[in-house]
Amino acid sequence: MRPTNALILACLALAALAPAPARADQPTFSETAAAEAAANATYGPRTTPGQTIPVPDDVSPQLQRLIAAPFGNVADAPKTGDEWKAAVAAANRTAMVNLDRLKRELGVTVEPTVVAGVKAYLVTPMTIPEKNRNRLVVALHGGGYVFYPGEAGTGEGVMMAGFGGFRVLAVDYRMPPDFPFPAALDDAVAVWKEVVKTTKPENVALIGSSAGGGLALATILRLKDEGLPLPGALAAGTPWSDLSSAGDSYAANAWLDNVLVAYGGMLEGMARLYAGGESFRNPYLSPIYGDFSKFPPTILTTGTRDLFLSNTVRAHRALKRAGAVADLEVYEGESHAQFLAGPSVPESREAFADIAAFFDAHLGR
Amino acid sequence: MRPTNALILACLALAALAPAPARADQPTFSETAAAEAAANATYGPRTTPGQTIPVPDDVSPQLQRLIAAPFGNVADAPKTGDEWKAAVAAANRTAMVNLDRLKRELGVTVEPTVVAGVKAYLVTPMTIPEKNRNRLVVALHGGGYVFYPGEAGTGEGVMMAGFGGFRVLAVDYRMPPDFPFPAALDDAVAVWKEVVKTTKPENVALIGSSAGGGLALATILRLKDEGLPLPGALAAGTPWSDLSSAGDSYAANAWLDNVLVAYGGMLEGMARLYAGGESFRNPYLSPIYGDFSKFPPTILTTGTRDLFLSNTVRAHRALKRAGAVADLEVYEGESHAQFLAGPSVPESREAFADIAAFFDAHLGR
Repeated sequence: MRPTNALILACLALAALAPAPARADQPTFSETAAAEAAANATYGPRTTPGQTIPVPDDVSPQLQRLIAAPFGNVADAPKTGDEWKAAVAAANRTAMVNLDRLKRELGVTVEPTVVAGVKAYLVTPMTIPEKNRNRLVVALHGGGYVFYPGEAGTGEGVMMAGFGGFRVLAVDYRMPPDFPFPAALDDAVAVWKEVVKTTKPENVALIGSSAGGGLALATILRLKDEGLPLPGALAAGTPWSDLSSAGDSYAANAWLDNVLVAYGGMLEGMARLYAGGESFRNPYLSPIYGDFSKFPPTILTTGTRDLFLSNTVRAHRALKRAGAVADLEVYEGESHAQFLAGPSVPESREAFADIAAFFDAHLGR
Repeated sequence: MRPTNALILACLALAALAPAPARADQPTFSETAAAEAAANATYGPRTTPGQTIPVPDDVSPQLQRLIAAPFGNVADAPKTGDEWKAAVAAANRTAMVNLDRLKRELGVTVEPTVVAGVKAYLVTPMTIPEKNRNRLVVALHGGGYVFYPGEAGTGEGVMMAGFGGFRVLAVDYRMPPDFPFPAALDDAVAVWKEVVKTTKPENVALIGSSAGGGLALATILRLKDEGLPLPGALAAGTPWSDLSSAGDSYAANAWLDNVLVAYGGMLEGMARLYAGGESFRNPYLSPIYGDFSKFPPTILTTGTRDLFLSNTVRAHRALKRAGAVADLEVYEGESHAQFLAGPSVPESREAFADIAAFFDAHLGR
């Protein structure tokens, strides 16, 4: 980094700690309007000014706290397999602390198992309502196809079990750097084939968020291609439906989403590591480029600040265009996957209540 | 020691004196990431950098053209009644040119009428499918409760008639500066009372976008309060559900939405002119503060760049929380109300096809 940039960055860091500048330092609305009208006076890309965007006051105090939080990891992606593994191990330690608390709060147990040679976890709520006795949820965890191997990846499954009263089978699919695409998809399909030997497919829901949502959509594409039975319902939370940089919110919500923050760096690094040289336009990698006909009823969840807002609404529209039953839920002010916050955040309970109600309406018994 | 503004100014001065960077173009991803991480290192409002946001390539070429268009009106609001009337007259002239083309393209006729003393227009498609013979759509136009009096306000009704095959009654409700709140709401309710004398309420849909969407939601609140029958379905396009500045996308999508552009100026001016001193928290003005129980099935439509994205998703969540059937449609890259673009834009046809299908599923015959 050149000295000039270092100096500017140091100053910006100091500025972040300083009191808000005096009102006189801010341009008036009319001044900003005139400048932006001039900057956007011809057809072309949109030019937006630097902004300070308040924490919205129309969401729960618990969600306000999440929205106000500092940026998550915006580091450059690790460069070697060992660096990736170190980053994964560090993230898992934090995730396990959160998971232990979550299991206690929701009264959910998690037991390791193996299904069709694939590692997995049986996630069981304290009580299973009669209507859910013959139902099962298969969960594909998020984490950019790299993070949260092992029990650390069962958090969403634990919430589905605890909030919804479902038995959950959480799949610990293989991931890079050791096992790039299509290992994760192969594992999801192998588990599915085994599950439907003993459970009616129409009684099984498939869930996943972020990379897990993308993998869930890709799994349906693969099941269709192989002529296998499909699940009775699908919940795709802010699915990574396009690994490429296409999608308006990758740019429009950059630096606004405090979880993923921006497409470059870590996020792009995970896409490349998972794809292992395969084209991002392969529908098994970026399911938005696939055929959405004959999809099961699907509920999608995102937030207005989500870097994957476009990934989610594009998948929703693709499903509607193909004639599927598809519900879209967009939460005010939420960044990527913040609906997974857990029991302390009312909007998180609400999201899982919606998903459970959707499953109840569409799954067999 | 806490940094002071003087320290920051000194830092910035030093930075300005330092040798200019060798490369005068955009900062690298890593540089922006470091600066933004520093600016967002503590709990609080989000700080975003000035950005250049490309026209997305994952929408139709016709929609790309709309997204690329220069900013709409970001002028300060008119200051006198005469200035408002001059602005309204100018907008109407443009609207009438577009309306005449739209009527021709869709083969729809528009005839003036009077219902319960309120001016209105009968909007009739070339053919009415058998299933729609006993159905009616009542349309409340947009325009910030100030713009598009007379036939100029029938555009959305013309599209509903042409795309959906419905008879439409488009209400030319009274507006400020001469008739502020609650004149518009009084007119909508008066028309409704007359309509249900001859048409089953469950066979009637209520539609409106922007201010018309807010007015439609407020009309339902008023009908409930007066114990009147409710329509069979509702389509609220990007409804102005909150006239106050509350709602995250007022800030987050400011200068990104190329139709409304920002909350201040004209938009805030229209809110004040319509409210006429009444509190923006009055649910008849800002229906988001109302009781959404017992609402009819409702479909809401918005876009990822819409300044009213939050107005729309907040209304959707309020409906879901109250137990209503509520469908949310969010179009990739669209700014405020761009789904009303008309027959040349595929995504506009798609939006009306969705609304028509929703009505067909929920209206009586």
